Amino acid sequence: MKKEKSTAEPHGKEKDIFNLNISVDCTIFGFHSGSLKVLLCKPSAGEKWMLPGGLITRDEIPDETARRILKAKTGLSDTYLKQFSFFGRKDKKKGEKENPEILSEISLAYFALIKSGDAQLVEDNDSEHIEWFEINNISDLHPEHKIIFETALSSLRKQIGFIPIGYELLPEKFTMPELRSIYEAILGRELDRRNFQRKMLSIGFIKALNETRKVGAHKSPNLYSFDKKKYEEAERLGIQLMSNNL
Amino acid sequence: MKKEKSTAEPHGKEKDIFNLNISVDCTIFGFHSGSLKVLLCKPSAGEKWMLPGGLITRDEIPDETARRILKAKTGLSDTYLKQFSFFGRKDKKKGEKENPEILSEISLAYFALIKSGDAQLVEDNDSEHIEWFEINNISDLHPEHKIIFETALSSLRKQIGFIPIGYELLPEKFTMPELRSIYEAILGRELDRRNFQRKMLSIGFIKALNETRKVGAHKSPNLYSFDKKKYEEAERLGIQLMSNNL
Repeated sequence: MKKEKSTAEPHGKEKDIFNLNISVDCTIFGFHSGSLKVLLCKPSAGEKWMLPGGLITRDEIPDETARRILKAKTGLSDTYLKQFSFFGRKDKKKGEKENPEILSEISLAYFALIKSGDAQLVEDNDSEHIEWFEINNISDLHPEHKIIFETALSSLRKQIGFIPIGYELLPEKFTMPELRSIYEAILGRELDRRNFQRKMLSIGFIKALNETRKVGAHKSPNLYSFDKKKYEEAERLGIQLMSNNL
Repeated sequence: MKKEKSTAEPHGKEKDIFNLNISVDCTIFGFHSGSLKVLLCKPSAGEKWMLPGGLITRDEIPDETARRILKAKTGLSDTYLKQFSFFGRKDKKKGEKENPEILSEISLAYFALIKSGDAQLVEDNDSEHIEWFEINNISDLHPEHKIIFETALSSLRKQIGFIPIGYELLPEKFTMPELRSIYEAILGRELDRRNFQRKMLSIGFIKALNETRKVGAHKSPNLYSFDKKKYEEAERLGIQLMSNNL
């Protein structure tokens, strides 16, 4: 949103930019070992943390800009990435002479869900810092990006019944506790083990495999896998797979 | 999205426009007697139907632009209006000389829910037509606006458990069949009478009044009212009031 600080710029060629006053900002959620994190950048020491963002080039649609930013920061391209909102604000400089033609700013906001362990974090230059933050432990985030981040989290929670969350974050074969830990991390609270399993299995997009995972002498948890086609069909039709009141 | 045809323009003063290539487009849903309609405009005979839309002025944020468009077309201002998505497309004219600097178009999309009977439809000029269409009976809608409309409908259906739909569309005191007819119109299918009533009452934001409505010698349906505070709190926190699998 602060265009002079935007990261992942296409080589700073202003003539290639669609509009200097419209940015794409990405809330990149990373899941690892039962905890949910968010990726933040700091252009240089002493500045506030920001969401990774950038400007749209003339040959891009915003979805492509968001993919480019995600790739530039994490090295990942084939992940869940979705627009969730846009934000407009009146420019604080309204009426100032040096900048009379730019009086509004618009941020097109995306969120991504990745396995944080898969990301290879890339800093744009020597002064930039990029880091994962626990979602409940973020300090010194730019206030406008804080609003975007909180809306992203709320949107992710609202959509938890619609989007193929586990599919993106789990191996092909997974255990029920592994699946539950993702939902718990996103919702920020513990879920009842039995209720969760019952609801997940009742929906029909998770199938029990006739396999267990050997983890010790006594524990051999059952393994499950996803039916991604059912997921995608449900999302396309706007059918909710389950309530988010788990 | 077609900027030269946008309605509700602020007197066509190009210098007041934030960006000619970014529009706000409104899918205005109207409810009346158990059916859901959408408001469409046709700039002049022979053209395709469009969603009401317009450009953002320099002193507006997009939310204000959407409110202005809604007011200009329907006379209503205090109604449910919400951004739901944005759309970007590569300009078909890419590379054409007369317009080298504008190669993308972005539409910021809102939907509104109103009682269609409350709207006073206003046409911008003599050539414009404005009309309510049954959502299942729309013909000759501009293909890009068709995508926006379909996304709006899918988004409304997905959010049916989160937003105070009935509150916006019903009188203060209402019957259970009246409430159900709104959900049926939005979801496009019949709902089980008993299940619906049970789910609605179990959530706690609808209270049974100790009153009935006198409609005849034998029928005296019970009346209910909303607790809007609970609704708003739930929306703020991203808590789902109920599943949309009614």
